Parts: sequence; C-alpha cells; structure tokens
Amino acid sequence: MELIDGNHIAGAIIAELKAEIATLPGRKPCIALVRVGEDPASVSYVKKKEKTAVEIGVTSRVILPPIGITQSELFALIDDLNADPAVDGILVQSPLPKTIEEVAVFRRVAPHKDVDGFNTINLGKIAQEDETGFVACTPAGIIELLARSGVDLKGRHVVVLGRSLIVGKPVALLALQKKAGANATVTICHSATTNLPAITRQADVLIAAIGRAEFVTADMVKPGAVVIDVGINRVADPTRKNGYRLTGDVQFATVAPLCAKITPVPGGVGPMTVAMLMRNTVKAFRLGAASR
Amino acid sequence: MELIDGNHIAGAIIAELKAEIATLPGRKPCIALVRVGEDPASVSYVKKKEKTAVEIGVTSRVILPPIGITQSELFALIDDLNADPAVDGILVQSPLPKTIEEVAVFRRVAPHKDVDGFNTINLGKIAQEDETGFVACTPAGIIELLARSGVDLKGRHVVVLGRSLIVGKPVALLALQKKAGANATVTICHSATTNLPAITRQADVLIAAIGRAEFVTADMVKPGAVVIDVGINRVADPTRKNGYRLTGDVQFATVAPLCAKITPVPGGVGPMTVAMLMRNTVKAFRLGAASR
Repeated sequence: MELIDGNHIAGAIIAELKAEIATLPGRKPCIALVRVGEDPASVSYVKKKEKTAVEIGVTSRVILPPIGITQSELFALIDDLNADPAVDGILVQSPLPKTIEEVAVFRRVAPHKDVDGFNTINLGKIAQEDETGFVACTPAGIIELLARSGVDLKGRHVVVLGRSLIVGKPVALLALQKKAGANATVTICHSATTNLPAITRQADVLIAAIGRAEFVTADMVKPGAVVIDVGINRVADPTRKNGYRLTGDVQFATVAPLCAKITPVPGGVGPMTVAMLMRNTVKAFRLGAASR
Repeated sequence: MELIDGNHIAGAIIAELKAEIATLPGRKPCIALVRVGEDPASVSYVKKKEKTAVEIGVTSRVILPPIGITQSELFALIDDLNADPAVDGILVQSPLPKTIEEVAVFRRVAPHKDVDGFNTINLGKIAQEDETGFVACTPAGIIELLARSGVDLKGRHVVVLGRSLIVGKPVALLALQKKAGANATVTICHSATTNLPAITRQADVLIAAIGRAEFVTADMVKPGAVVIDVGINRVADPTRKNGYRLTGDVQFATVAPLCAKITPVPGGVGPMTVAMLMRNTVKAFRLGAASR
C-alpha cells in the first residue's frame, strides 16, 4: 500500500507556480478573497489562502463585508471586482449567511474570474471539455493527485460516492473526459443507491465524497483499488484536547491494507484545494493577459 | 416484453401542449428556426418542427441564411433574435457549415431562449438541478418516455452507453438528479470502457447512444431490463427501394425478447425530440411572460 501524500504533491505544485510567477513581467496575478462574517472555519480557510498567495507571489486582496450585508450589496461588490482590471480571480468564501442565496452569488462572479469554478458556465464547460473554463478546486485536486501518483484512469472503472455539485458531479465529468489521463468508465452512487457494496467493490478507483465518517469499510473495496477520500469529518474524541479528531469517509485502518494507493485524512485531498485555487488564479491571469 | 411507443407518447404530449396553448391569452409562443443551407436531413427536420408548431398553435419563424453566411453574420442574426421580444425560442439546426464553429453559435443563443438546450449555461443547470434551464430535446425525451412508461429510476442502475454532449452526459445527469422519478445510480460507458458486457448486464435501464448499428446484443442485456435505443443508423439494404433501412444501436430482434420494455427504432426516442422542443418553447414563453 502506498500513501498518496497530498501535502507533498500540493507543495510541489505551489513551488512550480512560484517559479512560474517569478518569470512574469509587470503586474502579478491578483485574487480577491471575499469573506462575509467571522465563521471560524472561514477565517481559517481564507487565512490559509492568503498565506499561500503571499508565498508564491500572488497578490491577494481580502475583503471583509459585515455579516449583515444584503444580497444586492454583495452583488454590487462582486460587480466592482468583476469590472476591476487589476483583479484576476474572485473567491467568495462559503458558507454565506442564510439570508443570501449562495448559488446566485457564485453565478454573479464573472466566468473568467471564477477561480472557484462554481459559476454555472464553468460547470457546463467541464461537460463540454472546454479548457477555457475553471474547474472547482476539490475535483481538480483529485484529478491532479491521481495524475501525479501515476494513476492513469483510461478504461478503468471509477466509482464516485456522492453526487454533490462541488465534488461528485464535476469529478465524475472530469474522469469521463476524452483526454489523456481520463477516459474512465464512471459510476456515480449516492444515498438512493441499492446494494452499494456490490458497486463500490467494482471500483478500480473509488472516490468517497459523501461526508459520512468512516462510511467506506473493507468489504466495500476491491483489493488493489486506489481510494481517494474526500471527506473531512469531525468525530468526538475525549482523548484529544480539542475534543475531536478528523476522519475521512473511509475507515482508513481496515481499508488501507487492501489498497494499492490511498489518501490519508488529513493530508490527502485537503491540501490540494489551495494549490488548485492558486493554479486557477494564474490561469485567469494568463487568459486575461491574452485577451488584453 | 412491452414496446415503448414513442409516437403515441409524443402524440399525447403534443395534444397536451395544444390544449395548454389554446388557453393562453394574447400572443402565442414563437420559435425561430434557423437553417443554414439545404442539407436534406436538415430540411426534413426543420419541416417537421414547423409542421408540429403549426399543429399546436406555436408561431414559427423560419429563417434560411445562405450556405455562405459567415460566423459573424450568423452571430448578428442570432443577436437580433435574442433581442426580439416576439421570439421566445431559437433553434439553430445542426449541422452547420464547417467554416462555422457550432459550439460558439449554440453559446450565442441567449440562455433564456435556448430551447435546444445546447448553451453551456443550460448544460450547467442540469448539473445544478436548476429548473429554470432548458434540457436538450433528446435527453429530455428519454426521461419523459421512461416516466410515461411507469419506469421509476429511483435506486435503479442506469447504464448509459455513450458520453456525447447532446445525449450521454445530459441524460446521465438527469437520471442522477435528486428528484421524483430520477435518483438512479448511473454508470457511463464509452469507447474506452473495458469489459463492456459485464457492465451493461448490470443495467436495470440501459440507454444506448453510441451511433453504432446493432451494437448492443443479447449477451449485453440483463433479462428484465428496460432498454432505450437512441441510435438512428442507416444500414445498406438492397431489398429496400431507397437502398437502406434504419436501425438503432440495439440488435432489436435478439434483445427485445429479453426486455421488460424497449423502444423501437424508428418510433421510439425519435418522435419525442420535436415534442420536447415544443415543450421547451412553451416553457420559454411562460418564463418570459413571468419576467415581463
């Protein structure tokens, strides 16, 4: 069994981006990070994104509207960023307050600055295999992890557990694309799937993204499979100082011995998302420069 | 074995739409049908669409640019239709001349008038399960055929053969949606799939959309399955006056006896596309009226 080391792979990508950005003349790529309110997880995520941006030479502009901002005020703020030629990428940190319709906000971000890949057009472009689009960071990170671990999906059976808009569906569409590294047969399972273990046991590559702690057990995995664990779940653990531990959607201790390769949690898919965000920002910068 | 009669089901939908349109006060829904050049199949398809429109009380405006129209001239024509408040739906008949980039033309059609469902946004909206979008006519027709034949996809295994943008991918995303009638486990197979029969034999519902005559044989189908044959292939047949016969992607004679239900070719999925186009046009009219 080989551990797929997300920290190591993400670190390599970050280093590549840093080297690439160092060669750029003039203005550096710029990402606007919009965080509404003070949700502790959001504070920590945005801080991490800001820190990585600084590290590689991407300018970040952190914008902190108050929790009481209205949807139309947030739209106006996004419109300004869309129109600002000094801003290449825009990320609106989820979750937003319940008074604001999140999908509408994601759609408001101009498609060519949508480095989070949540705009409807960028989702459609994955299906169209249109390389000018932006792929959401988690599915992009999964595909990159596989590629850099030497897993060619061609003709292999990828089973995706979970049909969410931000992971399951886009990663399924990516694995299905008619291009090098992809070209997989893809099955998507979810809460309504019957006889789930019989299906997941067929997976050459199993991608678990359902958000249920240790849901995938050894009887659900074919020996020799590659397992990508997207889940990050908090499980109560009184032996820890903070009272919990993080666990994935896969019961690592029993599944890992069966696998050819597996991602740990934490340290697997997680670290890839910020790397992919930075890669999208550099891409947005380059596409913008090409059209200027 | 029960034959799924596409002509009958499409006829019922057409009748329902006719009754619905008769109750509309004022201006009737209007579809613009744009056909470039004189490709015989296109001439026949557009004629059929025009005829059905007349039949149910949809106004049709047929626009016939010459084969030599440039892409920018076609864009300008579409822009005019997009801006015209008397036009609810726009269909640009495929195929277009090779000098014109088809996907770019489909994207030019305003999303809210895109009754053919080929705009990138409308594709993304299928993934987002956003009901304000338009679903392309063939996948929409397949789902409607299943619904009206009493096939509930919930928890069943749908295997889609073919990953095209106009059939395979959208129908897979539709079957996957978290709503009544859908909620299927979905597998998508294609030219790079290995051990295909072992996968198709798992299908409770098999949707064949690969464009290869009689590709699906009895050994690939589970007894009791529902089979939807999307293929329309011309096979040389010297016994026929026109020298060919139409056949689907399924070897009907050997597969049909195994099935719970199956669509014939012709007379299965084919007749549904025009019915779905008309339904989309009425939907565009209603959404437009609601926003006026």
